[in-house]
Formats: sequence, C-alpha cells, structure tokens
Amino acid sequence: MNVLICGLGLIGASLAKALKKNTEHTVLGWNRTPSVTEKALRDGVIDESGDIDELIKMADVTFINFYPEAIVPFILEHKNSFKKDSIVTDSCGIKTKICNEMKNQEIDFYFIGAHPMAGREVGGYDNSLDNLFDNAIFICTPYDETPRNKTDALVGLAQDMGFARTVVTTCEHHDEMIAFTSQIAHVLACSYVLSPLAPMHAGYSAGSYRDVSRVARINADMWTELFLDNKEPLVREIDDLVSNLMRFKYNIVNGDGDALRVLMKKGNKIKEEIG
Amino acid sequence: MNVLICGLGLIGASLAKALKKNTEHTVLGWNRTPSVTEKALRDGVIDESGDIDELIKMADVTFINFYPEAIVPFILEHKNSFKKDSIVTDSCGIKTKICNEMKNQEIDFYFIGAHPMAGREVGGYDNSLDNLFDNAIFICTPYDETPRNKTDALVGLAQDMGFARTVVTTCEHHDEMIAFTSQIAHVLACSYVLSPLAPMHAGYSAGSYRDVSRVARINADMWTELFLDNKEPLVREIDDLVSNLMRFKYNIVNGDGDALRVLMKKGNKIKEEIG
Repeated sequence: MNVLICGLGLIGASLAKALKKNTEHTVLGWNRTPSVTEKALRDGVIDESGDIDELIKMADVTFINFYPEAIVPFILEHKNSFKKDSIVTDSCGIKTKICNEMKNQEIDFYFIGAHPMAGREVGGYDNSLDNLFDNAIFICTPYDETPRNKTDALVGLAQDMGFARTVVTTCEHHDEMIAFTSQIAHVLACSYVLSPLAPMHAGYSAGSYRDVSRVARINADMWTELFLDNKEPLVREIDDLVSNLMRFKYNIVNGDGDALRVLMKKGNKIKEEIG
Repeated sequence: MNVLICGLGLIGASLAKALKKNTEHTVLGWNRTPSVTEKALRDGVIDESGDIDELIKMADVTFINFYPEAIVPFILEHKNSFKKDSIVTDSCGIKTKICNEMKNQEIDFYFIGAHPMAGREVGGYDNSLDNLFDNAIFICTPYDETPRNKTDALVGLAQDMGFARTVVTTCEHHDEMIAFTSQIAHVLACSYVLSPLAPMHAGYSAGSYRDVSRVARINADMWTELFLDNKEPLVREIDDLVSNLMRFKYNIVNGDGDALRVLMKKGNKIKEEIG
C-alpha cells in the first residue's frame, strides 16, 4: 500500500518511522514547511514526497497529523484528490467534533477518526521516534455506517505498525474517556505548577512532584484547541475533581480523620483494582 | 557509633539496610512486632536487638520510624533511657507539630526532626530496600538552639548513608513545602481515581493517567495523620489548586482560547524553568 503521512511533526514522523521499521508499505510524506519534508526524505523516514494533490491521489491510507482545527479544512480543500474508497484518518486527541464535521460530506473515500495515544513533552520532527507507539494504544472511531472491512484495514495497519493495543469505539466515548485519562491530567499539571510554592520545590520534592507536574510541559496552542473542542466532557471532569478535592478539604478542616480514612481507602481500593 | 532504628517498616528497615551497606556503624534494631525484629536479625539487616530501654541506652543516634502520632509519646515514655547528649530523630512526613511538642521537654538528649524523602507504593519490612535513599533528599529541622555540631553529625550520617542531598531548614518551611510537593499530590491522586470514569480507563490511558494516579495507592491510616497534622499549609495548597482549576474551567466554558493559552504558557514556562 501507499501510506501518506501529512504533517511530519512528533506524531506524523513517528508514524512514518514505525511504518518504515515494521511494514513493507511505501511511505509518502508531506509537511507544510518544506525543509522538514526534505530532511525526512534524506533520513529515509519517508520514501517519496512532492505535490500534495499528487501524493493524495496515490495514497491508499492518509494520516492527517495537524492541530485539531486544521484537519477538516485540509481534507475538504483536497477532497476531490483522494483516491476513491481510500481511507483518510487523523491523529488528534479529540474525535467528536471532527467526526461530526466529516460525517455528512459528499466524499467518495472513507474518513475514520483515530487517536494514536502517545506523546512526549517535546514535539517536532527532531523528537520523533520509531518506537513511540510500541507500548501505545491505537483508538479509532468509525461511524455506524463505516464498512467493516475499512475499519479492519485501519486497525490491521495499526497492528502491523507495532501498536500494543487497538480499540474501536464511538467518538463520544473516546472524548469522555480522554477528558479523564489525559486532558484533566494536563489541566492539573498546569494548575499545580502555578502554586506560588512551585519555584521553591528543589530540595523538597521527589516522585510525587515529578509525576504530577510532568505534563505541565505543554504545547499551549494545541491543547487550547483540544480543550475547547471537548468542552462538556472536560468541564464534567474538572467539576468531579474539584468536588472530590473539596471533600478532602472539608474533612481536613473539620479534623474528621474517620471520613478522610474512608475517602482514601476508597481511592486506594479503586487504584488497586483498576491499576 | 551505635545507631538504633525503632520501627522496622519500609522506612526503618531501609535506613538499617543503608547503614549496613554504606557505613561501619553498629545497627541496633527494634520493632513492636517481635517477628519482624527476628527476621531483620536473621537477614543481617540489624546487628543487635533486645529490650527497648537497653537498646536506647546504648544508642548514639536513634531513628524513630512510627506513624506521626506515635512518635512523641514513645520518646517521652523512654525519655530517661536515652544516652546523655545523644541524637534522637524521626522520619515522618510532617515536622512542625512534632518539633513543637518536643521543644520544651526536659531532656538531656537532642531531638532533631528529620524527613528522609522517599517512599514506595508498598510498605512494610519486606518491601524495604538498601538503595531506597540513593537518589533521595534528607531534610532535617533543628531548633535555633540546637548545637551546630549535633546538626552536622546528623547531616553527616545521612550523607554517609548515601542520601543524594541533605537540606537543613525550619519545621514550618518543611511543612509548607511538603504540603505542595507531596501531600497535595496524594490528595489529588485519590480525588482523581474517584471519578466515575476511572474504572473504565483501560484502553484509553497512557502516561498521564499512570503518573497522576500512581500515589492513590496510599496508606490511608498514615496519611490521615499526616494531613490532619499539617492542616493549614495543606488547605492553602488545596485552595490554590482549586482556584487554578476553576480558572481553566471558566476559560473553557467561555471558549476563551486566548486566556487558556496564557494560562498554559505560564504553567509551561514555570515547569521549563524549575524542572
């Protein structure tokens, strides 16, 4: 197959590297900044590049690796170039908004939203890795009407690329789970390091500080789009978290050790059970 | 020197193992449950045990490794047995309450509060490690009137035991910093896994979930004491965190991308600068 990678940043270039390393497919690549495309060609990360519409015409599967807001406009701009019955997918962290926008388009290819769940605190082509997805989950969110063989082809490709696990679900379920497992963790990490005590942490911090603050190294532009595109599920998670924090505060202020113990035993039990 | 370790759980036994591994001192050990003491003797983790008051009489330095509430009563119960001018210290995670309680006692030994900053999600003798403190910070909080040579002796012992860094500060500064670097992270982790979505995380979680939820594996009894003994600094941190979370929520609800970007850029900058 010809697999086209549009956008050769951290995720796109890592997808290209995984394809080159683990499959026999031909990897076409394109990046808005041409110097990155040239570098990828020189490094052998992609096999071919060229005019974007020519590349799109050749592709059996196209991965669009842009910021959330840029994905649908790009697909629609080139919608007449995609090969009939080919698969077009993306890699961004929210799915409902994009899948809804793509749902009623008159197109003769198949759009299936996807989310390769991996990242680093550093972005861009130079930080891409051929093993970024080795322990990662590939989630995709086909429509009810997406032909089964198209979903299977995309899932099979992800497996061939080396993803540890694949999950097929609805875009809505993806978005509410990601609000919990990923987005709130990023909101938290930023909120945490905004404490006036943060600049003095050295000498007083160990694993807990390191773990909670890690993802405060955030790409502000990208996460702003991701948060605003997943407003309701994320706000629900912030509300839940704040209400649990306030239960801790209430029990601490009241010196209610029994209630605190119950709360922590419950948290501990959940964590022990769910991993 | 004779160094006595009272309480051979995770921290106590790890201190004993570090002493045996990295120093030539004689390690005396005592645990409330005698079977643990016997195991430690068999394992060579301690050199000697016996009657607690006899051990205390022999010790040049005594580490008390109990839950916070049990430390001062234990010291006072045996206060006439401690060797004159010897150093008595503890290893619990809050310092102001304990140091204040010990401050005006009529004693002829020196109490210096301490906090070897390391832990594991699993506790007890069987999980102790001889390298638990290899990358850890040893914080101690002498009084203004503590003789300099006594503080130096304790700090020197910590260095000999292999701690990566030693910090001497006031008990109040210790407690406010620990509220931020450690306690709030534990409150957070428990609050986080109490989300109704937590049990469904598998298939949708990666590094962020793992890091934020890690310390939800908590010893509820011990942390209840630690939280209640550090009420004001911890409540201040919860308030700060909740107020920052609410700023995120407010900007997300209002779709204010500019304000969100500013907030995240600030968080990102702090994290980049402070590590």
